[in-house]
Amino acid sequence: MSELRRDPLYQRWVVITDQRWDDLRTTFQAPWSGPPEVCAFCPGNEGQTPHEVFAVREPGSAPDSPGWMVRAVPNKFPFLRVEGDIQRTGEGIYDRVSGTGAHEIVIETPAHDADWGTLPARHVAAILQVYRQRSLDLRQDGRLRHIAVARNAAARRPQMPHPHSHILALPVVPRRMEDEIRGIQEYHRRKERCPLCDMVRQELGDGRRVVRETERFVSMAPFASRYPLETRVIPKAHWHDFGTLDDGSLQELGDLLRDHTARLTALAPVTEYSLVLHSSPFYPGVDPQYHWHMDFRVRVPVGGGFEWATGFFVNPLSPEEAARLLREVL
Amino acid sequence: MSELRRDPLYQRWVVITDQRWDDLRTTFQAPWSGPPEVCAFCPGNEGQTPHEVFAVREPGSAPDSPGWMVRAVPNKFPFLRVEGDIQRTGEGIYDRVSGTGAHEIVIETPAHDADWGTLPARHVAAILQVYRQRSLDLRQDGRLRHIAVARNAAARRPQMPHPHSHILALPVVPRRMEDEIRGIQEYHRRKERCPLCDMVRQELGDGRRVVRETERFVSMAPFASRYPLETRVIPKAHWHDFGTLDDGSLQELGDLLRDHTARLTALAPVTEYSLVLHSSPFYPGVDPQYHWHMDFRVRVPVGGGFEWATGFFVNPLSPEEAARLLREVL
Repeated sequence: MSELRRDPLYQRWVVITDQRWDDLRTTFQAPWSGPPEVCAFCPGNEGQTPHEVFAVREPGSAPDSPGWMVRAVPNKFPFLRVEGDIQRTGEGIYDRVSGTGAHEIVIETPAHDADWGTLPARHVAAILQVYRQRSLDLRQDGRLRHIAVARNAAARRPQMPHPHSHILALPVVPRRMEDEIRGIQEYHRRKERCPLCDMVRQELGDGRRVVRETERFVSMAPFASRYPLETRVIPKAHWHDFGTLDDGSLQELGDLLRDHTARLTALAPVTEYSLVLHSSPFYPGVDPQYHWHMDFRVRVPVGGGFEWATGFFVNPLSPEEAARLLREVL
Repeated sequence: MSELRRDPLYQRWVVITDQRWDDLRTTFQAPWSGPPEVCAFCPGNEGQTPHEVFAVREPGSAPDSPGWMVRAVPNKFPFLRVEGDIQRTGEGIYDRVSGTGAHEIVIETPAHDADWGTLPARHVAAILQVYRQRSLDLRQDGRLRHIAVARNAAARRPQMPHPHSHILALPVVPRRMEDEIRGIQEYHRRKERCPLCDMVRQELGDGRRVVRETERFVSMAPFASRYPLETRVIPKAHWHDFGTLDDGSLQELGDLLRDHTARLTALAPVTEYSLVLHSSPFYPGVDPQYHWHMDFRVRVPVGGGFEWATGFFVNPLSPEEAARLLREVL
């Protein structure tokens, strides 16, 4: 059974799942041999995943059968489970919490080789609709404090798996979110304003780091980007909760994200990138000071792993140059 | 010219070096083509690096010529420079500091294919001696606040470069160090004790997470390890400054690190690992509450990059099992 452990120095929670070494050793002792031959996420193989919890599908088509556009299922090998009470225990200087929570997979499209940059904008909006529905559903479990949504992808790398995202509902708030929340709250205390609202205002006024502006959103390269081509999508209004996004905004965001992914892909076709959604945690209510946003990061081997080792980042490409390249590439 | 920029949400400093896209684009658009054919770190090629700032070498051998055992040189492409005053400027919600500091490379051995696990223990001690000397020398520049030492290696992967470490002297304290210092100070305030001293005591009493104990040091798997086989080496006494380590302790630590690397390599031969040294920052004095230590991390593709995307870590191997494997492998 997995558990969450807290680091006494960094105040950071980690999931420990306790697999056997024999099941892991090939990961450490041999190069990766590629994905399985049959893809469990392709249409026709719905029986290979747990039962779907939500899907956007053709009217009349049955759950767990073809006819879906986007499909959410529990992870077959979850490291968190909804069953059982949350146990919180101490052991000298250490703290632990039982591995309670949910881990779901959003299968984003029936097409194994698709990418957000080539899907129709309304399909990307359908994926966002599934994020929204799962966020609203999972928060009904009052024991859970935070929902993390993340996806990794690379447009033109043959070994990338079927496009999917992870949704993780946690009984604790991850350290990185806590850091962000602390930064937002300190800014509010000092200035009685939201730092992300200020960021949107300053960036739109300046323009050098802006990639694209739509009616409700702006995409930009953050001032202190850690990675080349790092970008952020922010709603221009002070919206704290992704779960309350209306359908019109969902369509507009889907279009912006499709366009943004196509730009990223045109510049860095073989490079893996990730997308994370940061929305307010629940304690159990949402935090009205929070301002949701999405962060895109591109994984490139610059700096020889120095950043990975020290946590101190060196970015060879200025955000101003990154934004210019992204504006002009399409 | 490079600069340090501070993220207004995360209070995190990042170096932005502002290279041209044309010099970077192959990194993003084509797979890595391997190291250069001539290794600048091999004996005989000393002229291809900047002049050495320190070396452990045969008596009578000239600087920048063969005869060295360990050699420290400035990085040929530094993203920080010691020249010039530190400029601190603001721009709306953003802060920046000029890229002042030092970036040095420690060439660890003349042998291109060596690894700490196969070098003699006294050679590893000589590498540590260079870390100590550079730490004592670089801190004389009162503008610098922190020295980071890091190395990445993999024992048996053909494309790994000549063994070397990075030494970075910074005008700011990196976020991760600040987090650690804050954790240590909060613990001190609450309990009037050092959390790392408490950790050593609890781990030696418990024993399940201990890999090896010597007269002055202990190697162990941290309770909330983020990576499988993650390990930490801690001096048993409350030593805050690596720079004050005496020669006897240096030899003992060299022996422990050589042995530890050999264990890691036996379990995970093709896997890249990193080693970082965390010692007290200078403000300009050292922090007497700090307790220096070294962290080993193994980079494995578990979790499909989810950790990379969210900062929330899932470790499939318990620290108790990791310590048992490391104790028993040799």
